[in-house]
Amino acid sequence: MKRLWTLLSMVLLAGCTTPTLRGSADLGVVIERASGQLSLVDTSRREVYARIGGLGDLSHASVVFARDGRYAYVFGRDGGLSKVDLLEARIVKRVLQSGNAIGGAISQDGRIVVAQNYTPGGIKAFDAETLELLSEVPAEYAPGNFSKVVGLADLAGQRFAYALFDGGEVWISDFSDPRQPQTQRYPAGLQPYDGLVTPDGRHYLAGLFGEDGVALLDTWRSEQGTRRILGNYGRGEEKLPVFKMPHLRGWSMAQGNAYLPAIGRHEVLVVAGSNWQEIAHIAVKGQPVFVMARPDGRQVWVNYAFPDNGWVEVIDTLSGKIVKTLAPGRAILHMEFTPRGEQVWISARDDNRVLIYDTATFTKLGELEVQAPSGIFFTSRANRMGF
Amino acid sequence: MKRLWTLLSMVLLAGCTTPTLRGSADLGVVIERASGQLSLVDTSRREVYARIGGLGDLSHASVVFARDGRYAYVFGRDGGLSKVDLLEARIVKRVLQSGNAIGGAISQDGRIVVAQNYTPGGIKAFDAETLELLSEVPAEYAPGNFSKVVGLADLAGQRFAYALFDGGEVWISDFSDPRQPQTQRYPAGLQPYDGLVTPDGRHYLAGLFGEDGVALLDTWRSEQGTRRILGNYGRGEEKLPVFKMPHLRGWSMAQGNAYLPAIGRHEVLVVAGSNWQEIAHIAVKGQPVFVMARPDGRQVWVNYAFPDNGWVEVIDTLSGKIVKTLAPGRAILHMEFTPRGEQVWISARDDNRVLIYDTATFTKLGELEVQAPSGIFFTSRANRMGF
Repeated sequence: MKRLWTLLSMVLLAGCTTPTLRGSADLGVVIERASGQLSLVDTSRREVYARIGGLGDLSHASVVFARDGRYAYVFGRDGGLSKVDLLEARIVKRVLQSGNAIGGAISQDGRIVVAQNYTPGGIKAFDAETLELLSEVPAEYAPGNFSKVVGLADLAGQRFAYALFDGGEVWISDFSDPRQPQTQRYPAGLQPYDGLVTPDGRHYLAGLFGEDGVALLDTWRSEQGTRRILGNYGRGEEKLPVFKMPHLRGWSMAQGNAYLPAIGRHEVLVVAGSNWQEIAHIAVKGQPVFVMARPDGRQVWVNYAFPDNGWVEVIDTLSGKIVKTLAPGRAILHMEFTPRGEQVWISARDDNRVLIYDTATFTKLGELEVQAPSGIFFTSRANRMGF
Repeated sequence: MKRLWTLLSMVLLAGCTTPTLRGSADLGVVIERASGQLSLVDTSRREVYARIGGLGDLSHASVVFARDGRYAYVFGRDGGLSKVDLLEARIVKRVLQSGNAIGGAISQDGRIVVAQNYTPGGIKAFDAETLELLSEVPAEYAPGNFSKVVGLADLAGQRFAYALFDGGEVWISDFSDPRQPQTQRYPAGLQPYDGLVTPDGRHYLAGLFGEDGVALLDTWRSEQGTRRILGNYGRGEEKLPVFKMPHLRGWSMAQGNAYLPAIGRHEVLVVAGSNWQEIAHIAVKGQPVFVMARPDGRQVWVNYAFPDNGWVEVIDTLSGKIVKTLAPGRAILHMEFTPRGEQVWISARDDNRVLIYDTATFTKLGELEVQAPSGIFFTSRANRMGF
């Protein structure tokens, strides 16, 4: 009888070991670059609630989220695409989709996950549920010539925009029929190295490595083709030493203006969103990497390339002045705001810490132990275009 | 022994009857006005997955969401404030907080829920976790005179803005210390009847019933006080017959412009967000009620007051023209977009149906049986300011 009870209580325990019931709208992941792990975080409790390994090479990894906020799709540098269940804290599915990849995106309706690849160059579309391969678009810009793909971003209507580094073009592929994508091509310029779509999903911008300026495509009027904006944006005639080409994903829109890192200079540039003319530049402590607007656009937070990567500065967009200088830790790599902007989470890689600040008071609200943290991604990205 | 087994299997079943594990970022609620019920919906599966009763008088009810997307706070007309668990599909807590109420809001950090009341006039702040009363601000605009409160909206920094119908003022209360709110008062005009905050949380607008024009407060520079904009907006000198004063929550910002229902006229007004000057008016089929922008701002969807409340029209913001006219059903009361705008959900009260449309193709994707549906609210509102 006693045995029976023991057995039964074991059955009871096993049968009931379901994960804690919790909402998914306040969750997120932090990339642990060195160990190939993810820390799963809860921004309400401000805690790491689980860690997951087995994700392969996570240097330069990026993450998108399913529309239910439950699943994270993790794109590794090694071409690994992993679907992680944030509620059960486990890898649901993992495919090695190419040899060398650099991020991905998810369709407006959440049904298609697309990876962008360096080798072989192109994009691949997967069923978001099963990770079954649906179709691919090889980046063959000329017969037999394949390009690295960069700057992949989702657009309205199951479309994706991306740039061809070697091909010098912007392509838009429409996956309305997921197995038969339709692709349009537009000239971009020499060596586009990254791209972004504006928060409204309308304008696609591709930064150029091989020449100055930025290619702009109005995706609502894509028949008009690309045009060149910000003619002086780039490494310039003198080819300044650039420690790190800033990602275009480090640009922000706030109060109708774009805030962007100058390349090779200690400046944040302010550009009018209406005509893309530079209207101001703000002197800062180093070469900016991420220039991130708080969701309401009142503040812009800036971090820097080595050797200034211990600083974070906060620009007040109303006055155009720096209102706060912080030294949160060593090797500040990334910043992520909670959806309504009351907190910002900052990764300090060399301190093995994620720091949480109140954006109104600049008080430190907490710090979490995370091994060599880099990218921080919250599930609220599922609700946004271009994220 | 058999009894024991029966008992044990019952324990097993009971112990393991946990709700289905699911993400909360794609959930929502539909108000069933007549029956005092909520339909809980899933926008990925496009289904009603549960119904909840016992919520009291739900005419004119409104809903806000916890930052985890798991809990809905339902404000009833009868002063009832109910906290509903969307995962367990049950009422967790319910208080009758006043005799006559008209909606509420949730603080930027998600810790404080505030209700606005007609009788007795004022606002009350509750702990979002427990619904414990934290503090109240009676709307005593002159000694012994209390006002109905309308247009409550959350601002950055634990602040809330609202308007006093009888007092003719806009108040901002700061709940940084939740038990000791600090309130600032600003003149508004005659009988403000509703209010809204712009999507960036910066500008608070109060519509006036007693005179034409709208009171505007820049909450980033609230020391500058209110000013009057849209001097002709209102019922006008002739006091046009107005079937329904449109909510200010039916206004939208899209591509830098505000789209708003003309009062008493068959027009949608387009106003520049930069200077609040009218730049266009678009002829439509009836007196507009909700003028709702798709999240990317490319389309604006409009419904109408009786007798034109069977129509929905879609304005293309690029051309300024109506590109689609739909007749989704009888008594169209509300519309809600999925966060990235690929679907719109429309309530047709007199058909007892919620209709789901693809916003790119205008194809009907589905319809759900819901008793006399009115307001539709998706959890993505948790991530937005002023919702």
